[in-house]
Amino acid sequence: MSTTPFGWLAEARENRRSAGLQRRLRPRSADTELLQLAGNDYLGLTRHPAVTAAAADAVHRWGAGATGSRLVTGSTDLHAELEAELAGFCGFEAALVFSSGYAANLAAVTALTGPDALIVSDAANHASLIDGCRLSRATTRVAPHADPEAVAKLLAGHDGRALVVSDSVFSVDGDAAPLTELADVCREAGAGLLLDDAHGLGVLGDGGRGAAWAAGLAGREGTVVTLTLSKSLGSQGGAVLGPAAVIDHLLNAARTFIFDTGLSPAAAAAALAAVRLLRERPDLPERARAVARGLHSGLTAAGLSAVRPDAAVVSVRAPSPQDAVAWAERCRTRGLHVGCFRPPSVPDGVSRLRLTARADVSDDTLDRAVRTIVETAPAGA
Amino acid sequence: MSTTPFGWLAEARENRRSAGLQRRLRPRSADTELLQLAGNDYLGLTRHPAVTAAAADAVHRWGAGATGSRLVTGSTDLHAELEAELAGFCGFEAALVFSSGYAANLAAVTALTGPDALIVSDAANHASLIDGCRLSRATTRVAPHADPEAVAKLLAGHDGRALVVSDSVFSVDGDAAPLTELADVCREAGAGLLLDDAHGLGVLGDGGRGAAWAAGLAGREGTVVTLTLSKSLGSQGGAVLGPAAVIDHLLNAARTFIFDTGLSPAAAAAALAAVRLLRERPDLPERARAVARGLHSGLTAAGLSAVRPDAAVVSVRAPSPQDAVAWAERCRTRGLHVGCFRPPSVPDGVSRLRLTARADVSDDTLDRAVRTIVETAPAGA
Repeated sequence: MSTTPFGWLAEARENRRSAGLQRRLRPRSADTELLQLAGNDYLGLTRHPAVTAAAADAVHRWGAGATGSRLVTGSTDLHAELEAELAGFCGFEAALVFSSGYAANLAAVTALTGPDALIVSDAANHASLIDGCRLSRATTRVAPHADPEAVAKLLAGHDGRALVVSDSVFSVDGDAAPLTELADVCREAGAGLLLDDAHGLGVLGDGGRGAAWAAGLAGREGTVVTLTLSKSLGSQGGAVLGPAAVIDHLLNAARTFIFDTGLSPAAAAAALAAVRLLRERPDLPERARAVARGLHSGLTAAGLSAVRPDAAVVSVRAPSPQDAVAWAERCRTRGLHVGCFRPPSVPDGVSRLRLTARADVSDDTLDRAVRTIVETAPAGA
Repeated sequence: MSTTPFGWLAEARENRRSAGLQRRLRPRSADTELLQLAGNDYLGLTRHPAVTAAAADAVHRWGAGATGSRLVTGSTDLHAELEAELAGFCGFEAALVFSSGYAANLAAVTALTGPDALIVSDAANHASLIDGCRLSRATTRVAPHADPEAVAKLLAGHDGRALVVSDSVFSVDGDAAPLTELADVCREAGAGLLLDDAHGLGVLGDGGRGAAWAAGLAGREGTVVTLTLSKSLGSQGGAVLGPAAVIDHLLNAARTFIFDTGLSPAAAAAALAAVRLLRERPDLPERARAVARGLHSGLTAAGLSAVRPDAAVVSVRAPSPQDAVAWAERCRTRGLHVGCFRPPSVPDGVSRLRLTARADVSDDTLDRAVRTIVETAPAGA
């Protein structure tokens, strides 16, 4: 027998193309003049001089890579300093840094559950939490989106280890999870609560300390938070925050920690500098939220269907994937880069423009962005 | 009911401690004087001035982070340049860069299989390949280590999509997979072949073009290779190399590509500079292999049980996890940092010292390292 092992890919591509779901990479240049409302650099820190100087200095001092697993050669003093700073800033006992938020979520979900455990997972959770559930071999029950009563029902009667898993701010629509209610449900049931605060850190809570801090859950014994260093902190990487016993367990048991190369020193240093900046600039998170509110009110005043933002993400519905692509393209022609989310990047199959507010956007720029989006909207949006 | 959600962690810790398997992080300082034979910086490029200068320059030019998914804002001209360079150097049609080798492996295994597929996976494969198999929902059959006949038997009779998955150089013992035989078996059965060349790139093949190049498999239609940018290239990140149709499929379907932040510009630039250095210095891979052979012959001449290295990893067996830890500690006291691999980081439960050869180690230093390891060996090693 002799067939073509990857011959089936041509049909998969044609199916995507005819459904308007084919993607391509469009690399950006360093000196683009597009107004950027598509990235997750909510505070504008990725190009902040203090952040870039710290990263460049780390490259020269430590080298370009961590050279190995964090358990072998990949832990530097920088990683330890970053972990202490993240835990201290966000109000947790300890922290562990990973090469990505994806890896941090896989680690936390798998190492804190196991085959006999029950996981209750929000229907709109990020792909990395879902993959963590799949890898864990636990029994996973998917709860309707943002529904603590449904979570309580799914936990009821389970006797062993249980973990409730949720984004704190959902990445597509930018709405917040009902954290206080979820925490009550977990306490009642003796379940742990794992929150992915990728979109809350630097935006919500006192000075940007995150959604768990805002809900009074920071440092609670049953609460574990995962973070990304690549959004508000402008760098790369992820982290898990929690009780010291949880962190000790993760570094002994989490496969994406043990078997991955450590985060590069430059990325660790950039994130460290960004957290320190955040301590000095508690106004930045508030400004990012204000810009998000401004985007939302401008767009809805013009009749568009935008979700009221709980953080810095503003989602605007489009009639179809093809409409969403064409709409984003018209914005781009007018100098505005917005995100275009289509299946499989959306939990409900609805295509959207996804805008991200940034603390370093002026009121004039905000008005211009709203005008551009409104004037380029497709019929039916 | 009110229990302690993470109370079970104390017992897990005590079990690890009593089995000699408790780990702790030991951050290194930038100015350590330890001789480093524990990392994966095989060519000594992580601190090469051309590599660090490229990384620092990229930070200043592009910022500290990629700011989003590669499909939104996370692709820069640097990423495109790196992908073209990696594909060209290693002899493949196209490449796709990820934030880690772990993410690249999860992507390749899951996107190229699926629930109806058959995966045949080597028993000693890296954790990230194993996790890819688990996430894929395919039927996974584990083949005995480095046994192409067993692979052929496991493939026989399967009618649909099939993928054979193997490290090219196994990370713990440093032995090479029988690539020519595996490729023959795959061709015969119409199966794809996915090779993780994390430890082959920069060490094996003409000028370090990797294990697939060395075996004449580079650019073959049914062959896909995954790489890490964090070992020989001294940076951070991972990549998949293969036919353009495979790369197009991955960027449309692989969850760890779509839902992860892009690799930082600094890491992309460092890896790019390292590949270019490699083109100018084909002597480096040969030197790394010679150092590995020197370590092996010195250690076995002294009666230690070391695996003959096919690349740059040299593995030395220890009688127990406790012995391995104490042995590595005695080496450290004498100025030598060696890896200490214990369960769950070893496929067969046998604890080892793991040495990594480096191209920038002199013959004198090599002799000193061998002497240190031999003189500190435990009884029974």
